[in-house]
Amino acid sequence: VVTVLNGRLVDEAGHIDRLARSLREVDMPWPVSRRVLGMVMRELVRRNHIRNGLLYLQITRGVAPRDFKFPARARPVLVMTARPTDLDQVENVEHGVRVITIPDIRWKRRDIKSVALLPQVLGKQRAAEAGAFEAWQVDEDGFVTEGCSSNAWIVTGGNVLVTRHATTMILNGITRQSILRLAGEHGAAFEERAFTVAEAYGAREAFLTSATNFVMPVTRIDDYVVGDGQSGALTLALRRAYIEYAAGKGASA
Amino acid sequence: VVTVLNGRLVDEAGHIDRLARSLREVDMPWPVSRRVLGMVMRELVRRNHIRNGLLYLQITRGVAPRDFKFPARARPVLVMTARPTDLDQVENVEHGVRVITIPDIRWKRRDIKSVALLPQVLGKQRAAEAGAFEAWQVDEDGFVTEGCSSNAWIVTGGNVLVTRHATTMILNGITRQSILRLAGEHGAAFEERAFTVAEAYGAREAFLTSATNFVMPVTRIDDYVVGDGQSGALTLALRRAYIEYAAGKGASA
Repeated sequence: VVTVLNGRLVDEAGHIDRLARSLREVDMPWPVSRRVLGMVMRELVRRNHIRNGLLYLQITRGVAPRDFKFPARARPVLVMTARPTDLDQVENVEHGVRVITIPDIRWKRRDIKSVALLPQVLGKQRAAEAGAFEAWQVDEDGFVTEGCSSNAWIVTGGNVLVTRHATTMILNGITRQSILRLAGEHGAAFEERAFTVAEAYGAREAFLTSATNFVMPVTRIDDYVVGDGQSGALTLALRRAYIEYAAGKGASA
Repeated sequence: VVTVLNGRLVDEAGHIDRLARSLREVDMPWPVSRRVLGMVMRELVRRNHIRNGLLYLQITRGVAPRDFKFPARARPVLVMTARPTDLDQVENVEHGVRVITIPDIRWKRRDIKSVALLPQVLGKQRAAEAGAFEAWQVDEDGFVTEGCSSNAWIVTGGNVLVTRHATTMILNGITRQSILRLAGEHGAAFEERAFTVAEAYGAREAFLTSATNFVMPVTRIDDYVVGDGQSGALTLALRRAYIEYAAGKGASA
């Protein structure tokens, strides 16, 4: 999923880089060249008159009799859709959202983006049933990995930004990468490392990032209030910086 | 996947029982009642004149905008196909097949049958590239869980049949369950427990079971020859017993 802001694809290059990586890791050929893919994406946005919205892209190995091993002669299939969405989330941004924590039961190659999302679907449904916005998944050692469709962040008492380092244990969010870059540019201290649920409960600020939510303040984790219960100052500064970047210079023409 | 033998659905009740369990575990409603589903399955086999072949069945939550949480008003969708297949595998049964072992990287709810099969697809492809028939997945403690689309079995030096106990760590194969029942009826000693790769290398016999392969002798595991390198006596006896059962009294009319 790539967000469209002011008719531009946000972080287009980053998304295509990660797609390239996922394709390589599962040995899937490109349906069209990388250059053509970018052209088609932009053309789809243009012809559908999407100013603010989402582009969704999916690639399969192609049509073949059902079997486990890769088909020999199938041609990969590319499906792409674009639709307008309301990107305003004023209420959530002002008051912050609540997340719950759940065990991370996913497979071991979470760095590969695929449609095999059943654990994330079950986790997100649990969050919805608990009246929460997202579920943060927790590994066997008690460390947060990430949300079901977002990356997890905290700000420590010492005002250090912390998010899990990108290994096979998480999907390396494109928005996550941009936020790290922007934090560096703005001189914010940050660490890429695992943090425990207890550390998150006691954090000064918390937030989540994703292509559709940008930077979303988290003000409650399970039954704990984060910091003073208000959207954090660093969180909101990073949100503003990201939206400024996304709407302008960083996006493709 | 349900095998059709002599125009009958093999282990129909077992397959529908497991479907019921998977639907319940992911909170998905039945698209039609259990009784109607069985009728439709048999009708599909009849109208397609399938004598020997496969019936494939898939259920989704239905049509809804892409989101993680369950759709509110979607009606579940049922897709079913049936096709004739050649069930003869004389060469493989006579000489046995080779399996390789790979790390089990799947999620923690392997008891749920879903289309999120990417790890199994990657494993089966690795097997194919190694010239093997199947890949046995191995947990972090060195114990075999199961194949990518089959259950794994060994026969010990003491002539005891061993297959992993059914927990959330494996998919409880319908053929697996029938073989355990048949083994009991034939007075064969068996144990449901985990076994290591080393124990498998040193086994007297080995085989795999699945709806499409019934009981398939395994005569090589990685680079080790199992027993005397020939299809085992107990293995072949169980295969005969299963096919007799599947073709006759145990199948639905």
